[in-house]
Amino acid sequence: MKVRLYSSAAQFSAACQNVRALGGTLGLVPTMGALHSGHMALMHEAKRLATHVAATIFVNPTQFAANEDFGQYPRTLDADMAKCEAAGVNLLFVPDVREMYAPGDSTRVRVSGVADVLCGAVRPGHFDGVATIVTKLFVLAGTCTAVFGKKDYQQLKVIERVASDLKLPIRVVAHPIVREPDGLAMSSRNAYLSAENRRRSCAISRGLSKAWRIFESGERDIDPILDCVRTELAIEHLQLQYAELADADTLELFGGQSRLSERALLAVAAYCDKTRLIDNVVLGEDLDPLQ
Amino acid sequence: MKVRLYSSAAQFSAACQNVRALGGTLGLVPTMGALHSGHMALMHEAKRLATHVAATIFVNPTQFAANEDFGQYPRTLDADMAKCEAAGVNLLFVPDVREMYAPGDSTRVRVSGVADVLCGAVRPGHFDGVATIVTKLFVLAGTCTAVFGKKDYQQLKVIERVASDLKLPIRVVAHPIVREPDGLAMSSRNAYLSAENRRRSCAISRGLSKAWRIFESGERDIDPILDCVRTELAIEHLQLQYAELADADTLELFGGQSRLSERALLAVAAYCDKTRLIDNVVLGEDLDPLQ
Repeated sequence: MKVRLYSSAAQFSAACQNVRALGGTLGLVPTMGALHSGHMALMHEAKRLATHVAATIFVNPTQFAANEDFGQYPRTLDADMAKCEAAGVNLLFVPDVREMYAPGDSTRVRVSGVADVLCGAVRPGHFDGVATIVTKLFVLAGTCTAVFGKKDYQQLKVIERVASDLKLPIRVVAHPIVREPDGLAMSSRNAYLSAENRRRSCAISRGLSKAWRIFESGERDIDPILDCVRTELAIEHLQLQYAELADADTLELFGGQSRLSERALLAVAAYCDKTRLIDNVVLGEDLDPLQ
Repeated sequence: MKVRLYSSAAQFSAACQNVRALGGTLGLVPTMGALHSGHMALMHEAKRLATHVAATIFVNPTQFAANEDFGQYPRTLDADMAKCEAAGVNLLFVPDVREMYAPGDSTRVRVSGVADVLCGAVRPGHFDGVATIVTKLFVLAGTCTAVFGKKDYQQLKVIERVASDLKLPIRVVAHPIVREPDGLAMSSRNAYLSAENRRRSCAISRGLSKAWRIFESGERDIDPILDCVRTELAIEHLQLQYAELADADTLELFGGQSRLSERALLAVAAYCDKTRLIDNVVLGEDLDPLQ
């Protein structure tokens, strides 16, 4: 079955409505393209949860700061379309920037709280861009089940808030992180890594795994857990941007002398040369990242 | 025919969907209650444009600043329901605050540009509250024609932007200002006025009318037009908050030595004792406010 391609928001929206009008249900997988096995897993999960799957590919300018990699973000549309077809995607929406941000566009959706820490603290405006584009895509898609990966855990929490707060008829489903055999979390930005940097980057998941193991052994103090990450990154000379422990639901940071509660997000952002990588594990919930 | 009352967002949304599922069309009139003839005119217009009319009554806390009149805003639900019934409203949604802002709610919709001048400049955050609640109501109502009064002209422009930018399936229709026989623009806040202040408040529409007449006579300089308003307000000792001329579409202010283009919004905010009143006329488009 051929995937149907849409560049018009109105036509994509009508096609989504049509799926429901004919008695089907819709799964939605919003992406920025440069699709990898992580995205494919989201599409398969959407296919499992709904009769039809819509994917979107849009490199969203409003979630990049001026100094970030909007211009060089990988764009691989032909390969992406083949992957969508292989994954059984029915509708593929690939708008251009003017279709999603018409001239004069001046509305932004902003989440406070969960969007203000971690990546939100070091990428000001990033989650405003995410919340805005996801609101538009959710409005266009209408009633559906939207699947997001937990690699962008904070993004997932922001999107859950947007859907709930704005009363959007969207069920948000989280999918576990998909990793390379050596543990590196899959990301379109891994394409930026040289072979040597690709190897060095595994320090992140190794640090998360060590932290996971001492947590499983009963460790509840913050510093020894964060030290697992810091130490592994230092060995490979990765530049740590942050390593934080936060409540897995509210993203309130644990700090100082506090001890961890049941479910704690351990989130890491680090640079390998110029490539920014993020990864995380929910202690008390997820499996060992290296399992 | 009885109006059906909803306090649950989910049930109101389902009822709106049901109207369309049965082949009808929906007109929407969002209000803060304390209904007057201006609101009734919006409902009649909605009835003219759609087979079914949904009205909403919600005094939205996020559009009031801490020092404003959220607490004392008139609440007259029984009378409002009777008026809705008389106007042929089919569905009436009257949620409480927790229904629209559940615990943990932290998403806001913000419009820049049109929301930053005039009332937006003197009521910081006001239009964020308006844009947020209207987004939620639009999402719940779904495809419909929403009718708003031009008395809140800037609000109308903000809402037009939100609907368009967020791709909401809403046609926004503007309704002319409805005035008392003596010219005062109808507003729920007129209930705050004593008889004497009620009389003094007519200076606003008198000033707009004088400005309208000199514009019609060919005046295109800004100062003489604004002076019409300033002079009338001074006679009755109303405290001018602002009188501005702005492009009727973009709300970009005309200032200094500039001359007016074709359609220019003349917008006024003034205090009569403690009651804040707003009014406007679109020069080159509207009729004489006192006609």
